Amino acid sequence: MGKAANKCIGIIGATGAVGMEMVGALYGLGFAPKAVRLFASARSAGKQIPTPFGELTIEEFSVSAAQECDIVLMAVSGGFATEHAETIAQKSVVIDNSSAFRYRDDIPLVIPEINPQAAVGASLIANPNCTTAIAAVALWPLHQAFGIKRAIISTYQAASGAGSPGMDELETGIRAWSRGDDIQASTFQHPLPFNVIPHIDSFQANGYTREEMKVTWETRKIFGLPELPISCTAVRIPTLRAHAETITIETLSPVTTASARAALENAPGIEVVDDTSANFYPMPLTATGKYDVEVGRIRQNPVFGNHGLDIFVCGDQLLKGAALNAVQIAELLLD
Amino acid sequence: MGKAANKCIGIIGATGAVGMEMVGALYGLGFAPKAVRLFASARSAGKQIPTPFGELTIEEFSVSAAQECDIVLMAVSGGFATEHAETIAQKSVVIDNSSAFRYRDDIPLVIPEINPQAAVGASLIANPNCTTAIAAVALWPLHQAFGIKRAIISTYQAASGAGSPGMDELETGIRAWSRGDDIQASTFQHPLPFNVIPHIDSFQANGYTREEMKVTWETRKIFGLPELPISCTAVRIPTLRAHAETITIETLSPVTTASARAALENAPGIEVVDDTSANFYPMPLTATGKYDVEVGRIRQNPVFGNHGLDIFVCGDQLLKGAALNAVQIAELLLD
Repeated sequence: MGKAANKCIGIIGATGAVGMEMVGALYGLGFAPKAVRLFASARSAGKQIPTPFGELTIEEFSVSAAQECDIVLMAVSGGFATEHAETIAQKSVVIDNSSAFRYRDDIPLVIPEINPQAAVGASLIANPNCTTAIAAVALWPLHQAFGIKRAIISTYQAASGAGSPGMDELETGIRAWSRGDDIQASTFQHPLPFNVIPHIDSFQANGYTREEMKVTWETRKIFGLPELPISCTAVRIPTLRAHAETITIETLSPVTTASARAALENAPGIEVVDDTSANFYPMPLTATGKYDVEVGRIRQNPVFGNHGLDIFVCGDQLLKGAALNAVQIAELLLD
Repeated sequence: MGKAANKCIGIIGATGAVGMEMVGALYGLGFAPKAVRLFASARSAGKQIPTPFGELTIEEFSVSAAQECDIVLMAVSGGFATEHAETIAQKSVVIDNSSAFRYRDDIPLVIPEINPQAAVGASLIANPNCTTAIAAVALWPLHQAFGIKRAIISTYQAASGAGSPGMDELETGIRAWSRGDDIQASTFQHPLPFNVIPHIDSFQANGYTREEMKVTWETRKIFGLPELPISCTAVRIPTLRAHAETITIETLSPVTTASARAALENAPGIEVVDDTSANFYPMPLTATGKYDVEVGRIRQNPVFGNHGLDIFVCGDQLLKGAALNAVQIAELLLD
């Protein structure tokens, strides 16, 4: 019998980039639910869309309809989640991809490879930020093996972080450039083609953006290390849907490239892609569509003596960075 | 009388991306030499090209012709420079943009804002790597003000780092994508459009690329700090000609965003672009064509307590990262 055969699974925000990937990830992880119900706004209601579960009809969202599902995956704005998630969670188990509940002490924030125990018994679970999830699956085995004293991250984030409108704006801009036309920006603060924008989400009083602080706040919560010194500079670049990140850590015990590689190779959710002699290393070109996060360019960083390590990671923002992790949480709850 | 009015200035490799920018930078810095002579291979010889100094004819390179110039700027491969630069330097002053001589103890490596004294009396001077030059002009005033204990850099490098062929390959690839055609790669190891390639120059035994190690080796030499702990992860992204970099430093004395900003604002070669309320920060879109390196996103990084600082820099790879710095060295030699 297939996974979740006696369950109804609902997806709210099903027509967005993350919502659509949630349907795909359910299928990809072997779910065969009694029913998959897709909810969106009235505008999309009635639309028939092809899915791996056959053609499905978009339903207009209502709390009562959502509550008919056993498990509800939400791929909506923080505002929408704030308004409805807790009500739905009175009857269903809700996994919310927005940042609305991630920082509430009474709500677990879960990456199944790291803190599955946090999900036990919860009816509302928060799914982490994309940049955090991609970094954390690589950092956790290193933390277990060597202890992380501090971590410094720089990101190379794809347009998909802003959803379908972000990807559309990049593609439209690139096509405009090819025709010799001006490049417009509205989803992003500046034109993204051929550019780099060190500005994702709003600026905070300390000068960091909220996106950058999410990596600090969420990694600390998921790892159960409320004081972990970890910083991020989050940068949008003209790629479509996989985020890359450079990560430098100082470790508590000595680290070598061989011991780091062994720790990473044995960890779930990771594919070590690190054969420089064959030009194999993590890239959006290869990480896109992949469930595992690619980890490579493993180097001992002498800036921290024999306690320093550099890695380069790349993960699909829409998969491990969003939809896949949410579906993995759902999988966890079935066990 | 204009700058260098009694001098002949020669440019070898004049038809390349850096060579052409050298002609522009000579004009931009107010040079009015007796003659500007442009040298290239036999293939280009005889070609007439428009320049700010009027239409000039490309001459076929020969050592004897180059030696007729007072100052020779070389924008050629390391192999070509190794073969000819020292011979030319027997009669002319040579400024070489390749990496051939940068690590020789008897040859100065110069950024005029930092170590102009090193150029005095030299007949062969090396111009630094592009990534190094852009980082170093921002790091030097911070080092003078606070002392740098260690530095960690991640780069966002433009196609121009591979010269005209690199820019052509990115533009051709983007146009192919717009038509729905396959994207080819030959200058780069993988297709660059919509991708990120953590591989610039060859891999070394320690896992770092030569590009990454250049930042370490060259910053140490230019700063006169042979042990400075500084590391780099060098990443190619689909931009055309300005390199961006995230830089995290731990300082010897305490640092604040205000004190860092003051140090940077008073430094030459830098434009502080750091008004997040107006969405002003360094970007290729604004740094391209600019002589100054843009510095912004100035933040105190708590990962190093009150001794940590994050900045984001962006500089034109072909200007401060290559041609402009070489011409500034020439300017220095006239004084």
